[in-house]
Amino acid sequence: MSRMLAEIRQQPAALERTLAGALAGVERFRRLVEKRRPRLVVLAARGTSDNAALLGRYLIEITTGIPVSLAAPAIYTLYRARVDYSDALVVGISQSGESTDVNVVVERARQQGALTVGITNEASSALARAAGHVLLVRAGRERSVAATKTYTGQVLLLYLLAYALGGRVRLEELRRVPELAAMALDLEPEIAALSERYRFMQQAVVVGRGLNYANAYEFALKLMETCYVVAERFSSADFQHGPIAMVDRNFPVFAFAPSGATWPAMRAALKKLRGLRAESVVVTDASNRQAARFATRLIRLPRQIPEALTPIPYIVPAQLFAASLAACKGLDPDRPRTLSKVTLTM
Amino acid sequence: MSRMLAEIRQQPAALERTLAGALAGVERFRRLVEKRRPRLVVLAARGTSDNAALLGRYLIEITTGIPVSLAAPAIYTLYRARVDYSDALVVGISQSGESTDVNVVVERARQQGALTVGITNEASSALARAAGHVLLVRAGRERSVAATKTYTGQVLLLYLLAYALGGRVRLEELRRVPELAAMALDLEPEIAALSERYRFMQQAVVVGRGLNYANAYEFALKLMETCYVVAERFSSADFQHGPIAMVDRNFPVFAFAPSGATWPAMRAALKKLRGLRAESVVVTDASNRQAARFATRLIRLPRQIPEALTPIPYIVPAQLFAASLAACKGLDPDRPRTLSKVTLTM
Repeated sequence: MSRMLAEIRQQPAALERTLAGALAGVERFRRLVEKRRPRLVVLAARGTSDNAALLGRYLIEITTGIPVSLAAPAIYTLYRARVDYSDALVVGISQSGESTDVNVVVERARQQGALTVGITNEASSALARAAGHVLLVRAGRERSVAATKTYTGQVLLLYLLAYALGGRVRLEELRRVPELAAMALDLEPEIAALSERYRFMQQAVVVGRGLNYANAYEFALKLMETCYVVAERFSSADFQHGPIAMVDRNFPVFAFAPSGATWPAMRAALKKLRGLRAESVVVTDASNRQAARFATRLIRLPRQIPEALTPIPYIVPAQLFAASLAACKGLDPDRPRTLSKVTLTM
Repeated sequence: MSRMLAEIRQQPAALERTLAGALAGVERFRRLVEKRRPRLVVLAARGTSDNAALLGRYLIEITTGIPVSLAAPAIYTLYRARVDYSDALVVGISQSGESTDVNVVVERARQQGALTVGITNEASSALARAAGHVLLVRAGRERSVAATKTYTGQVLLLYLLAYALGGRVRLEELRRVPELAAMALDLEPEIAALSERYRFMQQAVVVGRGLNYANAYEFALKLMETCYVVAERFSSADFQHGPIAMVDRNFPVFAFAPSGATWPAMRAALKKLRGLRAESVVVTDASNRQAARFATRLIRLPRQIPEALTPIPYIVPAQLFAASLAACKGLDPDRPRTLSKVTLTM
């Protein structure tokens, strides 16, 4: 069994530990920001952590109304610009905590007097030292190059951050997340069988919207790095502004389709794809009864999940799919060619 | 000849008109924001206009130090959230000015008392009415579905906006842009010959960094919508955090490689790609003497261009390449399958 698959399976326990371990610190941070509410939240990250940041961007704006910006580290590291973050909360997100350019953004912001938070798996990392406050992913060491349990851990901590910022996030609902992730893991045999069909898939598109937009990025990244599939990622809205032209008969499109706010827009996109005779694989749950009509293949979580809680349970089957597909293709997802676990970027 | 190619050729004149037409209004706007400096700039757009916004994001942060956020319209239109933009400048960018979700972001912001700007090709559009200030792209009617002259016009106006915000942008340098675009157009025969080689290309990656990151998105979009090539787009930094695993021998990678701040990082990426025996097509200019060493094929503008001015002249050869490749492939770039000029999104 690959390490990736083993780590995917560890997620319910890792999420449980991360939640329990973070609560006291989150309450302290909540009292702090009550007195000093940031005007802007800036999220800085790379790779999988940047996909968690993308989720955080939607979550924080939707639940708190504070504007969010995703930092472009090159602006500091290459252009040496000084961006005014004096009344911002700047959050660095990194599995290893050793992503130099992310740490530069956090350090500069702290020097300016900004509130800073580090979200990382490593308590003694450079990021943990650089940030004024640390939210720790307690996922245990991640050995596979393809990050899975640290992604969901980071996402969970971003929910807690939104809560600390006064957002409409209910802690009792968050306590359901580990159990929802466990329910998603039960789909493993079904997904392993499904992945066979895509043994020779070379390209694909993944679409999501709103709170599941980040999952489209994350699923595509897993398909690229573990299966070498050229996988594009779009919001279902941007997809229809041009890229849909490349979709031909039988072109594989993966879609995250919860019920709720994004479903009417996603349904319209799926309807268009059905008209083009694309092959659609739709990730959904028991609350969305219409999704089956638009899917060539359905990955359906067997219980009803409120849309706000879907991001973590929805990415789990996608991770399982990537790990299974890599195995079908005879690839080792733990050691993708040309990659190493910690990537240093200029 | 396709309309797309005709419109690509109109760019020097369109840029000239856009610059001359906007200057007086930009100076007025500059005096206004001197008195009321925004704490945040928010850019809202879709499709090609969103790629212009991505350029604007780098340009405004680098030259003014004001934080920039790219709006996610779904947050307003689907989740009906209220984000606090009271001390922000909110800029809607749309060729037609009829992109409903972009207009919603601008309207909501204006109701909150935010400064608002519309960048559009249509003086009597809904966006022009919704925004407090209008910067007009004077490109003439764009008939091709694939946007070209409106993209460069929008980018030029974003330089003027950065100038109005007190950014380090010199107007006398900007006056060179139409002439630099004309110089890029002279490469047309060379690029038409080059595109033959890619007649059967089905997938590709486009990379850029910093001020040319947006061009990677825009070139990839043109390859997707006019040539049906599955074209991924990355910053050269993110590319090395995972997606590079899918690059095999002969995999085509297009790169924007000016000299200046981003070159050492781009050189490292190109070196790695050469080690993987990828095929690299590098867009550069006479100031970068090292780029040739890392390129399978070179698209080289014959004069030296300061990096800050490269975004417009660098996208022109990419537009020419997409139009030529579409012709090679027997496709009509003016009428991509399944697309129409104005896309309505929920």
